[in-house]
Amino acid sequence: MKNTVPKNMKAAVMHSTGEISIETLPVPGINHDEVLIKVMAVGICGSDLHYYTHGRIGKYIVEKPFILGHECSGVIAAVGSSVNQFKVGDRVAVEPGVTCGHCEACKEGRYNLCPDVQFLATPPVDGAFVQYIKMRQDFVFSIPDSLSFEDAALIEPFSVGIHAANRTNLQPGSTIAIMGMGPVGLMAVAAAKAFGAGTIIVTDLEPLRLDAAKKMGATHVINIREQDALHEISCITNGRGVDVAWETAGNPAALQSALASVRRGGKLAIVGLPSQNEILLNVPFIADNEIDIYGIFRYANTYPKGIQFLANGIVDTKHLITDRYSLADTREAMERALNFKNECLKIIVYPND
Amino acid sequence: MKNTVPKNMKAAVMHSTGEISIETLPVPGINHDEVLIKVMAVGICGSDLHYYTHGRIGKYIVEKPFILGHECSGVIAAVGSSVNQFKVGDRVAVEPGVTCGHCEACKEGRYNLCPDVQFLATPPVDGAFVQYIKMRQDFVFSIPDSLSFEDAALIEPFSVGIHAANRTNLQPGSTIAIMGMGPVGLMAVAAAKAFGAGTIIVTDLEPLRLDAAKKMGATHVINIREQDALHEISCITNGRGVDVAWETAGNPAALQSALASVRRGGKLAIVGLPSQNEILLNVPFIADNEIDIYGIFRYANTYPKGIQFLANGIVDTKHLITDRYSLADTREAMERALNFKNECLKIIVYPND
Amino acid sequence: MKNTVPKNMKAAVMHSTGEISIETLPVPGINHDEVLIKVMAVGICGSDLHYYTHGRIGKYIVEKPFILGHECSGVIAAVGSSVNQFKVGDRVAVEPGVTCGHCEACKEGRYNLCPDVQFLATPPVDGAFVQYIKMRQDFVFSIPDSLSFEDAALIEPFSVGIHAANRTNLQPGSTIAIMGMGPVGLMAVAAAKAFGAGTIIVTDLEPLRLDAAKKMGATHVINIREQDALHEISCITNGRGVDVAWETAGNPAALQSALASVRRGGKLAIVGLPSQNEILLNVPFIADNEIDIYGIFRYANTYPKGIQFLANGIVDTKHLITDRYSLADTREAMERALNFKNECLKIIVYPND
Amino acid sequence: MKNTVPKNMKAAVMHSTGEISIETLPVPGINHDEVLIKVMAVGICGSDLHYYTHGRIGKYIVEKPFILGHECSGVIAAVGSSVNQFKVGDRVAVEPGVTCGHCEACKEGRYNLCPDVQFLATPPVDGAFVQYIKMRQDFVFSIPDSLSFEDAALIEPFSVGIHAANRTNLQPGSTIAIMGMGPVGLMAVAAAKAFGAGTIIVTDLEPLRLDAAKKMGATHVINIREQDALHEISCITNGRGVDVAWETAGNPAALQSALASVRRGGKLAIVGLPSQNEILLNVPFIADNEIDIYGIFRYANTYPKGIQFLANGIVDTKHLITDRYSLADTREAMERALNFKNECLKIIVYPND
Repeated sequence: MKNTVPKNMKAAVMHSTGEISIETLPVPGINHDEVLIKVMAVGICGSDLHYYTHGRIGKYIVEKPFILGHECSGVIAAVGSSVNQFKVGDRVAVEPGVTCGHCEACKEGRYNLCPDVQFLATPPVDGAFVQYIKMRQDFVFSIPDSLSFEDAALIEPFSVGIHAANRTNLQPGSTIAIMGMGPVGLMAVAAAKAFGAGTIIVTDLEPLRLDAAKKMGATHVINIREQDALHEISCITNGRGVDVAWETAGNPAALQSALASVRRGGKLAIVGLPSQNEILLNVPFIADNEIDIYGIFRYANTYPKGIQFLANGIVDTKHLITDRYSLADTREAMERALNFKNECLKIIVYPND
Repeated sequence: MKNTVPKNMKAAVMHSTGEISIETLPVPGINHDEVLIKVMAVGICGSDLHYYTHGRIGKYIVEKPFILGHECSGVIAAVGSSVNQFKVGDRVAVEPGVTCGHCEACKEGRYNLCPDVQFLATPPVDGAFVQYIKMRQDFVFSIPDSLSFEDAALIEPFSVGIHAANRTNLQPGSTIAIMGMGPVGLMAVAAAKAFGAGTIIVTDLEPLRLDAAKKMGATHVINIREQDALHEISCITNGRGVDVAWETAGNPAALQSALASVRRGGKLAIVGLPSQNEILLNVPFIADNEIDIYGIFRYANTYPKGIQFLANGIVDTKHLITDRYSLADTREAMERALNFKNECLKIIVYPND
Repeated sequence: MKNTVPKNMKAAVMHSTGEISIETLPVPGINHDEVLIKVMAVGICGSDLHYYTHGRIGKYIVEKPFILGHECSGVIAAVGSSVNQFKVGDRVAVEPGVTCGHCEACKEGRYNLCPDVQFLATPPVDGAFVQYIKMRQDFVFSIPDSLSFEDAALIEPFSVGIHAANRTNLQPGSTIAIMGMGPVGLMAVAAAKAFGAGTIIVTDLEPLRLDAAKKMGATHVINIREQDALHEISCITNGRGVDVAWETAGNPAALQSALASVRRGGKLAIVGLPSQNEILLNVPFIADNEIDIYGIFRYANTYPKGIQFLANGIVDTKHLITDRYSLADTREAMERALNFKNECLKIIVYPND
Repeated sequence: MKNTVPKNMKAAVMHSTGEISIETLPVPGINHDEVLIKVMAVGICGSDLHYYTHGRIGKYIVEKPFILGHECSGVIAAVGSSVNQFKVGDRVAVEPGVTCGHCEACKEGRYNLCPDVQFLATPPVDGAFVQYIKMRQDFVFSIPDSLSFEDAALIEPFSVGIHAANRTNLQPGSTIAIMGMGPVGLMAVAAAKAFGAGTIIVTDLEPLRLDAAKKMGATHVINIREQDALHEISCITNGRGVDVAWETAGNPAALQSALASVRRGGKLAIVGLPSQNEILLNVPFIADNEIDIYGIFRYANTYPKGIQFLANGIVDTKHLITDRYSLADTREAMERALNFKNECLKIIVYPND
């Protein structure tokens, strides 16, 4: 395949909160161990919306014109001199955090805890709402023809669910409650299904999300506007509680409910990041019942499995992607995601359409 | 050895909160798989004091004349017809919770979570402030001559520390912070030492306890009346935080401090039971740093190791036992424990002296 | 339901190797914690055939008139005084090994290693080719109406596969090779499928078995009469080797092949029991590639999951059961199993038809 | 400290088997992420002797003038531009295998299985019998003043024992048998001691080695010239067998003995590499007793702990180092190691004395 990389490209640049404009930037050069990727699909994530609205997440502050977007896939457009796993034209998914490979966390296999990670769309590292990005080859993964670029972009939020399943040692046949059916929660349902969970109970307050959850594998849905989650979970589990619960919404009440839903000797994963720091948790319940609680930060070693699961059709993601935009309309896409939460699930931007 | 079991025995019976009187009761009969134990030493535990003061712990309510005491050791006085591991005269430690052996928790090796456990001095099961108790043979463990009856009684609180070490997978050479240096905390120091922890940092506000901790293996002691625990731990660990923290005091501030002291990717065990249910915990810290939190409820499969560690002299328990009483003075022992907390560590009652 | 337990029953009794006759025996009485089960289906296992042919397996020697059969299911016919989980008429699967619940192995959750286990059809304990058996209630499991008695009997060999999956920590999406497609191997395919294995490669030399394997979930079948297993596995895995291999046939060459098929860092389970003790294994391969090898002996804590998996239709067992006999024809069933191995997979005996 | 790196250095170069000559070579240049190390101590390993004698180990063939030695320590002589953890003059231990950091094995924390590792003294990578080596900074570890250069060189064989302890999950208080008391076996005793093993039984046939083992922490030594290892181990463990066994000698009979010594449910590590491929192992024993067997290849994530253990004086290595040579006498050192096995344990070469 002939390599025809242009010199310049379009990028959706955020200059201040609430402002994104399309600009022309030089296509990035690549190192010997990097590939250049023509970006074909980028999902909008809650963290993108948070930077767009607040200009920061915790200690990460947007201090310059900044490019958002980190859930992405594309086609190899150029390869560095030492790249041997890819050739121009290969279709790929992109794991967005490049780690050092040398620190203690990296060497122990928990590279998501690498203090020197360079993560797309986390200041000061620019993201993927552009036509071309560069990436170190070991964070790029070939995808089969059967996997769409949209699904390949979804591997990123899917990875969070897979990582939660790994951390909580989710067993086939087990009973799980997943709180919060935003895109991360919905892909967590997919992960629970891929790991063989026998009963998947989900909670949310939006019918759109609960419907999608059901289509993606939830066996029981609870609308917490109308039903008491704990009472319902108790009924479903004959009073026993769930083996595992994951809180994905960052909601304090959902977290308390997730904890209370766990059976004696069960496990809880904290996936969602609450906006407040201190949350009241029932500590005697944790001790008396020997609950294990696992914090979840991104993911590690999940992409090959995530690609395999989606390529094998473990879930039908068509229920998840509700809106599609061109790069030129990135700002509209962000506004849609912010202002019509009850109508949207995952929104995809196509930088090269 | 001639078996000379009397018909009657003395017992320290609690008729109402704050009241313990010595009474004569029949020596219990034994089933085919039980042994009768002449009780030689019983430690006073915080739970004994709680029942003595409040008449209840959570759902467990003292509703009849009741006998306290569950940290005990003694000599085999009689054996049931199918008992083949013991003979009269054997010196033994007693694991105080008899489990069903048939439920899911028991079959999976987590018998401390057995819903049908019969635990000494947990209503309605009477305890060990008596001259003789019966016990199913599989919860009785031979002790070597080198182990005193007092040390054998200490295996019970020691077991809590060993179980915390197992649950948090405490590794040799690791750095641990242990909050609260009551008897459970002090025996937890012994457990951390037995598991090879390289740096053992402890906190308390009583010099007596901190001194004992140092003698039992703590490498660094922090008096939280005078020092900021987090600042000190940060200095000791060069800003890294500890690999593992255990909170043993049931104190909300100590628990918050224990959590904050843990390094990225580290582990926290909740050993102490706070008197209030809901405690504020820093949830984003747990998620961002992928902390594991483990509730600890009693222990399982710890006695053989506990006996071995103490028999091998891993710690010198003489720093831990501060007061000794005869059975006739059980009430005085309880009052001493309650009213002179700053002067006492572990108090032992000798029912057959 | 009215309880109409007869005083006598029919039993298929083996008096010497190769001889089984139908006799009338008293229906067994039950203890307070036991149930009486009207046996509805019993699978013939390779161990039954071995006792029938050789009169012994290793140290277990048939020394009296003996009853074979341990893969069984039935209906509760009577309950002991302390039985509260079952009532007369309940449909149940039977886990055939009753353990002591008190030894170190039992207490640590590895009750399959209990030295005092009483296992059906393992001398001197009689088996299930009878109309009624008694069993301690904690080794009896309710089955839903959707599960046939035949499937319920299959939970026993299925358990071996589930246990192998647990021991080798089989992950969803992983690649597994299973050597030997006898009934245990075929149910191991079902277990691999239940655990979400992405690629299931199986080997055997009988087309009947390979066909059944394919119908039960194998993604690749290798007839070792015609193909080189290692070469095929290498092709299927792009030269990488499998994540996990299980040898179920007790065949030395299959075991060597299973080992050689494992990728660097992979795992091997030894499920099948070879007739010879000493087998040549490539030890430098094990060391250089850090292979983990796990011996598999029966199973523990598998029945609830096994019932759930089969009830959920994870595999269609109709491919597995090839022959059906009444109790009166137990001897014919055994002869059929021995002499027509290429035509039979699992043979079921119905003691109460 | 002034940086005075010379242009040339002395090196002990092997031109053919049995021939080592001292030559002058240029001091290597370093990359931005590398350090130059003035080599102060190098241990002679069995693999060095094997290359010296046979010119190859398995697929690794010496095809050019080659420098042996990989157990080394020294002083930082120069640092690359991006090195921030070291300064000239720092005393360091060297982990001899530089891994890629990007492959699946590296990312999962098992970097010892990295297919692209560059390992000192493994063809074609030259080793440490030179005055200066370069090394990527993340495989260099600061050592405290209390740790001698000799001890720092011993961290390499010590790491093998630590890795075996990690792989076999060696628990404090457990009973271990270690077969073979060469330097790796002796340092494995140190590892077992550091992990808190309660009973450490060792076997060898040389009194010198058994004496050293006793001084380094073995609780029981068995001279297999005079005693039957299995019988002795059975006596020591009251017929129970050991929790864990490690074979470190690469001897088939020792491996068979190690396996047979393991208790039901116990673990075996294969550390030593036998010269023959196929070894007879008792497979029914593995299956019936659910033994876990772990292949051991080098180590990962062991250096910080190894340094800490030796610096804390967990063992006294003075019993281990029997001979000392200057670089000029490297050939004599090798011959001594080969021809006086019964008189030597670890031999150290000092390239800069």
